[in-house]
Amino acid sequence: MTKINRAACIGGGVIGGGWIARFLLAGIDVKVFDPHPDAQRIVGEVLANAERAYAMLTGAPLPARGQLTFTASLEEAVADADWIQESVPERLDLKRGVLNQIDAAARPDALIGSSTSGLLPSELQRDMRHPERLFVAHPYNPVYLLPLVEIVGGEKTSAETIRAAMERLVPIGMKGVHIAKEIEAFVGDRLLEALWREALWLIRDDICTVETLDDVIRYSFGLRWAQMGLFETYRIAGGEAGMRHFLAQFGPCLAWPWSKLTDVVDLDDALVEKIGRQSDEQAGGRSIRELERIRDENLVGILQTLKGGDGGNGWGAGKLLKDFEDGLWAEGGKRDTLHDTARPLTLVETKVSPAWVDYNGHMTEHRYLQVFGDTSDALLRLVGVDLAYVRDGHSYYTVETHIRHLGEAKLGQPIHATCQILFADDKRLQVFHTIHNSETGEAIATAEQMLLHVDSKAAKAMPAPEIILNRIMAIAGAHATLPPPEGVGRHVGQKRQG
Amino acid sequence: MTKINRAACIGGGVIGGGWIARFLLAGIDVKVFDPHPDAQRIVGEVLANAERAYAMLTGAPLPARGQLTFTASLEEAVADADWIQESVPERLDLKRGVLNQIDAAARPDALIGSSTSGLLPSELQRDMRHPERLFVAHPYNPVYLLPLVEIVGGEKTSAETIRAAMERLVPIGMKGVHIAKEIEAFVGDRLLEALWREALWLIRDDICTVETLDDVIRYSFGLRWAQMGLFETYRIAGGEAGMRHFLAQFGPCLAWPWSKLTDVVDLDDALVEKIGRQSDEQAGGRSIRELERIRDENLVGILQTLKGGDGGNGWGAGKLLKDFEDGLWAEGGKRDTLHDTARPLTLVETKVSPAWVDYNGHMTEHRYLQVFGDTSDALLRLVGVDLAYVRDGHSYYTVETHIRHLGEAKLGQPIHATCQILFADDKRLQVFHTIHNSETGEAIATAEQMLLHVDSKAAKAMPAPEIILNRIMAIAGAHATLPPPEGVGRHVGQKRQG
Repeated sequence: MTKINRAACIGGGVIGGGWIARFLLAGIDVKVFDPHPDAQRIVGEVLANAERAYAMLTGAPLPARGQLTFTASLEEAVADADWIQESVPERLDLKRGVLNQIDAAARPDALIGSSTSGLLPSELQRDMRHPERLFVAHPYNPVYLLPLVEIVGGEKTSAETIRAAMERLVPIGMKGVHIAKEIEAFVGDRLLEALWREALWLIRDDICTVETLDDVIRYSFGLRWAQMGLFETYRIAGGEAGMRHFLAQFGPCLAWPWSKLTDVVDLDDALVEKIGRQSDEQAGGRSIRELERIRDENLVGILQTLKGGDGGNGWGAGKLLKDFEDGLWAEGGKRDTLHDTARPLTLVETKVSPAWVDYNGHMTEHRYLQVFGDTSDALLRLVGVDLAYVRDGHSYYTVETHIRHLGEAKLGQPIHATCQILFADDKRLQVFHTIHNSETGEAIATAEQMLLHVDSKAAKAMPAPEIILNRIMAIAGAHATLPPPEGVGRHVGQKRQG
Repeated sequence: MTKINRAACIGGGVIGGGWIARFLLAGIDVKVFDPHPDAQRIVGEVLANAERAYAMLTGAPLPARGQLTFTASLEEAVADADWIQESVPERLDLKRGVLNQIDAAARPDALIGSSTSGLLPSELQRDMRHPERLFVAHPYNPVYLLPLVEIVGGEKTSAETIRAAMERLVPIGMKGVHIAKEIEAFVGDRLLEALWREALWLIRDDICTVETLDDVIRYSFGLRWAQMGLFETYRIAGGEAGMRHFLAQFGPCLAWPWSKLTDVVDLDDALVEKIGRQSDEQAGGRSIRELERIRDENLVGILQTLKGGDGGNGWGAGKLLKDFEDGLWAEGGKRDTLHDTARPLTLVETKVSPAWVDYNGHMTEHRYLQVFGDTSDALLRLVGVDLAYVRDGHSYYTVETHIRHLGEAKLGQPIHATCQILFADDKRLQVFHTIHNSETGEAIATAEQMLLHVDSKAAKAMPAPEIILNRIMAIAGAHATLPPPEGVGRHVGQKRQG
């Protein structure tokens, strides 16, 4: 899998900022050129949102953040980049000018993606010297969470460019879909535009309000479309009779007056004002920042849910997240060898996710055990019990856990977990984990756990192989010199010492 | 809140079956008339899907399932019903005939809803003697999980009928939205039809395949629409500039050639065959049953995620689920007084949810603690520590937990949890929970927990009030005569007895 080494972003608004966040969080250095006076502030805000979301989205080890540099010229930004993303305003003449400038200053083998949501790549590449490496890479807002990128080539775009672009999106957690023929607005915005035009008629004609229309979407087909699209949903609706039979029934409906789209609505001042007023009522005083926060937290939760879909195999955007995390774990495992074993190991760093809190905004009981489980998993990867080892039929199973709650963690709270090995032999591994408030260092909860090395098919304990044991014993030996943690060896209800 | 007491369903296909499941699972008796020879089988299948989904969706105490009766005549089905739902095929003459028959046989005060997805209520009610109680109640498939019901009145429908219909949907977990004016296809199917027509063009013109089009939806705006609709999403996109400014920019775009909807596609045999073939490829051999299972599990997870949205307050369809569960808990609390205290209390019965399993299909470690936490919550409600008590600023907090894993639970596995009180005084409550495989009775895991009664604002332990203590002591006294559970008082790593 070929990766992007150095990225350049020309234009750093909300969309450009989203691309910048994707690159930086995947460990890629980014040079940005945007002469707008607010560019650094806007990019900073998008990046802060993205980092907040990622901290909740995944417990997998993110690489060290790439370096962000704002340059004084476009040429400086693109000079050594191998992926250049153009996200300037949606005007053909402006985009053409910028792309020609990029074309002249970039390495000849650099890939050049345009974020345009509607202009044809053939038009964009018309005057370029190396037009074969120009393509549309159209993302969706928020770019740091929504994985879709529509990849569209123009007449002069090479097949190799399309292939290379699709491949390079995978390590940054995105889903490239190749649109076979270029048309204005591609596929996603075509569908949105159709629905949008119909929606405008419904509001104009007072069939419903903005809030009712949104409710109709989010209480019904919106819930379906987070996981399956239009056709797969209809396939199910068709049932045993099959897709073809189902479609054949649809034919006559197309002649029914079920759409006003054969006319185009006049979006005049009165309609703009009506929608604006209804939208204000719907928002109920929530600010854009607040709505963004809610949207991102919901997206994080939906993506995590779909990661567990299809019986734990992952489904749709959740499968993509799972694949992305597998890659992070594989990379993170390599970095894990650098731990200092003279003190408890810091193995997990995260923030309290929106899915983890109760109605009081406090982290719920079982989410502590989730973080402790992640801590054990991180220790196991460190000693060589990685995905490949587990898939091969061996693992450590937790047989016993003792948890103490000493404090509370709230939504968004940065926390980290440390691990001290208490005891180990060929089958047993006894550990003591502590979850800390990362701002104060204070211990919020502790867990003592006993794990057994098992043959997972036989579900029986068996000795761990020497290569794993040696690594465990090296840490256990170093930890044997540490004082026993406070609270070790307790049973429930035992009086506290001291 | 007025509830439905007795429901009748005329027509028991996939949609009628979904309504039947909603009613039965909310504890409402349903009489069904459907002369189709397969009606009982189809309703049975939908009901089985619904029960499977509900068991995963909520841990709240569902009422005893309502009684399902298939009648030999329409008249018998509707005679004593207070909500009659018509779900016969989508033909005006057929629906009119059935509705007139219902009208003649029903109580004059019964509400009559039609599941039509497009016919006008004024047309449907034309020949009825009591047309004022006829309305459209248009649901979305799967009716047992998607909450939306479009409520549409005709010229003769009374305002009181609309009000009563909206109110009665709440206790069955549905979201009624009132569509202000009747038009063919109402709001949801208008929007779907617009998108559908555009999609057909995109496939016909080979812009993309069925799978690509579905991917475009589910990797981008589908993820947004599960939680917010079209306008609220655009409100965010508009940012600080505001909704009106954002809309004003849209005006010119409406004149762009961004939709082919001004023509109507010819859904001829060739296009039907093309879509059928591409849909087969996309399904990759998965059966409709399998796709239904995946869809329902994803919907369950998305609804649960949104329940935790907005910092634990619930958002959109998740807020609705939360309200529905609050109602179930309030009802369930009343039933909880009937427990037999001479043995450990059975407090939780559930199935292993899709969000709970790892890639091996086994229930993950922290989900055991989730079930143990639910068990403690159920005990607390039983002794009077309910939502109102907690909101009032007092609660029991878990301070210590000891878990033993003795077996495994797999996806869909029915499990139940029992509780034995070990010790209690004015502040402390020590319990021993066991999760059992409900098929074999075998213990899969145990948890010993110490809870403290607290003033939650001060986050300090304080004595529980007498009314709560008396209930705890009554159970604790009865449980004192039981033998101590195997595994009680263990610390991690202790040798097993015997």
